[in-house]
Amino acid sequence: MIRVTTNNREADDAKQKQAMSPEERQRQVEQQQQLIAQRSAAIKHKFAIISGKGGVGKTTVAVGLAAVLAAEGHSVGLLDTDITGPNIPLMMGLEGQRPRASESGDAILPVSTSAGIKVMSMGMLTQHPDTPVIWRGPLRGIAVQQLIADVEWGPLDYFIIDMPPGTGDEPLTIAQSLPQIDGMIIVSTPQEASLVDCRKAINFVRQLDLEVLGVIENMSGFICPHCGQETAIFGSGGAEDMAKQMGVSFLGRLPIVPEVVQLTDNGVRVNGPTVPQVFRCGMDNIVVNWSAVIQSGTDS
Amino acid sequence: MIRVTTNNREADDAKQKQAMSPEERQRQVEQQQQLIAQRSAAIKHKFAIISGKGGVGKTTVAVGLAAVLAAEGHSVGLLDTDITGPNIPLMMGLEGQRPRASESGDAILPVSTSAGIKVMSMGMLTQHPDTPVIWRGPLRGIAVQQLIADVEWGPLDYFIIDMPPGTGDEPLTIAQSLPQIDGMIIVSTPQEASLVDCRKAINFVRQLDLEVLGVIENMSGFICPHCGQETAIFGSGGAEDMAKQMGVSFLGRLPIVPEVVQLTDNGVRVNGPTVPQVFRCGMDNIVVNWSAVIQSGTDS
Repeated sequence: MIRVTTNNREADDAKQKQAMSPEERQRQVEQQQQLIAQRSAAIKHKFAIISGKGGVGKTTVAVGLAAVLAAEGHSVGLLDTDITGPNIPLMMGLEGQRPRASESGDAILPVSTSAGIKVMSMGMLTQHPDTPVIWRGPLRGIAVQQLIADVEWGPLDYFIIDMPPGTGDEPLTIAQSLPQIDGMIIVSTPQEASLVDCRKAINFVRQLDLEVLGVIENMSGFICPHCGQETAIFGSGGAEDMAKQMGVSFLGRLPIVPEVVQLTDNGVRVNGPTVPQVFRCGMDNIVVNWSAVIQSGTDS
Repeated sequence: MIRVTTNNREADDAKQKQAMSPEERQRQVEQQQQLIAQRSAAIKHKFAIISGKGGVGKTTVAVGLAAVLAAEGHSVGLLDTDITGPNIPLMMGLEGQRPRASESGDAILPVSTSAGIKVMSMGMLTQHPDTPVIWRGPLRGIAVQQLIADVEWGPLDYFIIDMPPGTGDEPLTIAQSLPQIDGMIIVSTPQEASLVDCRKAINFVRQLDLEVLGVIENMSGFICPHCGQETAIFGSGGAEDMAKQMGVSFLGRLPIVPEVVQLTDNGVRVNGPTVPQVFRCGMDNIVVNWSAVIQSGTDS
């Protein structure tokens, strides 16, 4: 069961406890792999949302995809693997909610939203939202594994994994421990500082022998609410060009919409009636393109 | 000397080589600590720029502070500790440049910009800008230590350390291995999803017994170039309120300026004559406020 320790001394204690013999450690790893395989056996599609650079809107995309898929009648699970900066509870309106233990007592149950999306995040396990999780990479990797192995997700059509930025421990752990993952979706803004990290992320996914399901361009243009004119604050079209050059699918673009920032800050689902149409259409379009990629992958 | 390995097998080899006896490892750690102490002895002020959430403009702030301080006649060093997503070379116009070995051959020399800023980044050591660095946390921590221990920075007035987002291995390594660091500056956008991570970052710095030098609010409002009206895309004022509540200094705010995104994408320094005045003034104001904090710290 997941045990959250949020200061250095406790983390050191946790590390001490992990100082087991190589055989014991190996047995524990194998048991956890078996658990992960069991828990994920009833999940039809699993995919991760990653980015090279932070702050490009990965979590907004993850939350948006979950909302659209749930609205279409699919059963959806959403796992926040950002251990040090989990934002999913805030953005799904689940702050302060805690997961319960399963009836058998050997697992914890994800928290469900009003739309039926099953959600799990480290942010639901820490004592206080301001408490930092000060863990080095290996502990974060173990925590990510436990968020899959110890959580009873049940049967799902789609399991969406929201990653922290970069090509570090968390995506490596997911790639190495979650079986039959469909692939990864990469989010980028159109600016070069993001595109250069996005190209790295594409090569990262390829080196892990996983599928790049496609690239999404977020923060693609801003329409002034005062005059209606568009400004390409972070540029525009860069991610589509880059996707072509790298030979991966381009899934679509999403504009900067201040109302979406406010809504996600307040935990309102991003496909509801209060979301501006330009964003809802962008997200629907992405789901259509992405479904086509998943379908072609299933056919081949 | 830093050896860059950028795929899994090489990283595994590197890990194998680190399988030394505890005594050897302890001796190596002590030697590296001595080297870091020696190399940093002639640096007057050392501080790190961190954030809880990614993509809030940490690197833009780091590059901007370096530019303003250099323009004031100070000697400045800038270290990019983002191992998996280094953007400093791009944003400083140093892409493709490589550091040289020192005359003695026992260190490498940072790359200097035309303004005399000494820069070092993992991005200057990888073979190709699109190559991902696939390292787990402990290897990234060692790389950060080496970027200080193996680089001959020389005497500096200011040493600015740009961190990857979050409270992970890199800031922990810097806090634990760099002596007499003045403190950390925290960058946030006004949106709640960033502020919640910013509060975590403040507590993180305090738990490490380091000084929070202050909070900067970036992406604070956008002025439409077509009609001149302002929109608080990511909100406004949230970081200042949060700084007050948490009892830390507020250093100032920077607006969203599309020209700055373009300039940093093209490696043009962000205090030059082509930078819109609103951004230059914001950055100058931050340096004034921050100098006052540093000064009061020196006095106390």
